[in-house]
Amino acid sequence: MKVETLRWADNKLEMIDQRILPASFEYLAYDSAASVAEGIRSMVVRGAPAIGVAAAYGVALEALRLSSTLRQAKGERDSFNAGMEAGFTVLAQSRPTAVNLFWGLQRMHGMWESVKGQSHAAVAQRLLAEAHEILAEDIRINRAMGAFGAELLADGARVLTHCNAGALATAGWGTALGVFRSAVEAGKKISVIADETRPFLQGARLTAWEMVQENIPVTLITDNMAGFMMSRGEIDAVVVGTDRVASNGDVANKIGTYMVAVLARRHNIPFYVACPLSTIDMNIASGADIPIEERSADEVRGFRDYHWAAEGVSIRNPSFDVTPAELVTALITEKGVVRQPDRDKLRALFNLEKTVGHREHRDHRDHRGKNGA
Amino acid sequence: MKVETLRWADNKLEMIDQRILPASFEYLAYDSAASVAEGIRSMVVRGAPAIGVAAAYGVALEALRLSSTLRQAKGERDSFNAGMEAGFTVLAQSRPTAVNLFWGLQRMHGMWESVKGQSHAAVAQRLLAEAHEILAEDIRINRAMGAFGAELLADGARVLTHCNAGALATAGWGTALGVFRSAVEAGKKISVIADETRPFLQGARLTAWEMVQENIPVTLITDNMAGFMMSRGEIDAVVVGTDRVASNGDVANKIGTYMVAVLARRHNIPFYVACPLSTIDMNIASGADIPIEERSADEVRGFRDYHWAAEGVSIRNPSFDVTPAELVTALITEKGVVRQPDRDKLRALFNLEKTVGHREHRDHRDHRGKNGA
Repeated sequence: MKVETLRWADNKLEMIDQRILPASFEYLAYDSAASVAEGIRSMVVRGAPAIGVAAAYGVALEALRLSSTLRQAKGERDSFNAGMEAGFTVLAQSRPTAVNLFWGLQRMHGMWESVKGQSHAAVAQRLLAEAHEILAEDIRINRAMGAFGAELLADGARVLTHCNAGALATAGWGTALGVFRSAVEAGKKISVIADETRPFLQGARLTAWEMVQENIPVTLITDNMAGFMMSRGEIDAVVVGTDRVASNGDVANKIGTYMVAVLARRHNIPFYVACPLSTIDMNIASGADIPIEERSADEVRGFRDYHWAAEGVSIRNPSFDVTPAELVTALITEKGVVRQPDRDKLRALFNLEKTVGHREHRDHRDHRGKNGA
Repeated sequence: MKVETLRWADNKLEMIDQRILPASFEYLAYDSAASVAEGIRSMVVRGAPAIGVAAAYGVALEALRLSSTLRQAKGERDSFNAGMEAGFTVLAQSRPTAVNLFWGLQRMHGMWESVKGQSHAAVAQRLLAEAHEILAEDIRINRAMGAFGAELLADGARVLTHCNAGALATAGWGTALGVFRSAVEAGKKISVIADETRPFLQGARLTAWEMVQENIPVTLITDNMAGFMMSRGEIDAVVVGTDRVASNGDVANKIGTYMVAVLARRHNIPFYVACPLSTIDMNIASGADIPIEERSADEVRGFRDYHWAAEGVSIRNPSFDVTPAELVTALITEKGVVRQPDRDKLRALFNLEKTVGHREHRDHRDHRGKNGA
């Protein structure tokens, strides 16, 4: 079964409802920036690359919606423009950590600026074409990353992953799970150990489901078992995705990733981060600058509507943590593998090596722009 | 509300059903060795010290049960003796990791050997008195440990704990949570951060509940958040319980403890283990010799009857892990605090310092004896 996390149908964006997987497999339809923003916020769609694609479609949907109700007259052109900017803003406020959201919005905003003078319908069609292109690019990029990453895994490797960096976290194929798919496609036998990833259980529900679909052997553990498995020599490598990489190579990813990275270092297990360039934020100096989302206490109180925690307890729910670059064996990107990532190597990746300050060449990397969180 | 984890009523052992806390608070009654063994296996009662006490009562209950059905005639005396040995065996097979089980059984077996010739009723009464004494001792020991441990915590300390080493894990007061209770009793303001402790959720259900009952501030996190909290400087110390400490100071405790210990070391946070002497197993050389229980896959598939994991996924469920002695800042025992525990210091604790081989003085420490797992 091919997983189409996001698809265009009947002039709407359809997204798999990842909150109810794997028990139920359903698409929900979206027709405006605000509804897509709510879909991102409530985690119908999650995963940094998928969020970036969804946001791009959110912009296109807003243009289509506005163009169907507003005429080309002067006053209504102002309303259209104001409506579009409001659409960018509501999308930018959906979630704070994954930089792909701001990357996608920035790219769409650049396109929007370049076609602003045209008819509403022409603007909407051009933005929709750009969203389609971002989706198609995402899959090509994942395929390229997968090929580079597959070379890092030995035949027979037992590979731990945390959260879901799979087809469901992207437009398809996946980042970390894309590496596994590419390794299997290249004829390697690998097996996956999936952390269940409390509180949203992306590992137990989504990664396990994707791997079972593909007949890739997968073993589920609770998040607190990874150290035991490593101490017993049952894990050969770790591959995870990321929501934002700072310009010094620090990696923000799903809460718990940092603990896995620390344990991997202790056991001399390579720790790889599958990371498209769109996830690297050259505008921030280090992981300390990455905003960490805190989500609702109810997620930790239990799962869905089933609450098991004692009444009266306080709750924390940081959704991401930061793994310092020194713990990262390599970043796997669509341009190749970056071992022991640091600022110089990341600058080289963007062909910024001749500049001095890391904020000088912002033309194609100003992810957040005026719509930034 | 005083928590009586185990209590004697109507010639039966009553135990709080910890599987259904905190939503429901109910006692279940036990009247035989086999039923107590099943209560231990199914985790109606859990926590190493509580298991030791429960097993002691299991032996006494078996003697009462047999004495009520068998007379003193020769053949029936053989039946009584055989029944008692079978009772010891079924209890020893209930769970493998916590050494207190074997310690409790060994102590009861010593008493049983010493009164064997007496009437069935006299034997039963003597064994019951011994079980009562073990329970009373456990509370006295926890109080002593609490006083020593409380001195290690600064006023205002934010202390992480994993699993439940509380009143519910003992006859009362608790080991790790006993330290917190004693610190508060001594006038210190402390706050507790509780790992939820998948899959059985002892932290979310039991530790949080105990702390709320006592008005000790408690914050619940998922197991994968501890590293983040440490990296943000929000944890000042870690205190956990243990199911077995090897003679070199290696510590077996609830799965996930090892990851917490590794992260604590990275962040220079002291890692304390509250540990009655009955939990130290001088008969094994290191943590590598501690049997690690693997429990049912269904526990990881979800919680209770609510299963969320993808169908077809393999599952691992090791219930404990081993933290090497080098990561332990100190053991907190009823005889005092043992910093940087090692074999010599543990031998000194048992007054074994003059012997050479660590197996020479087994008289009062042969926990497992013939009933050992």
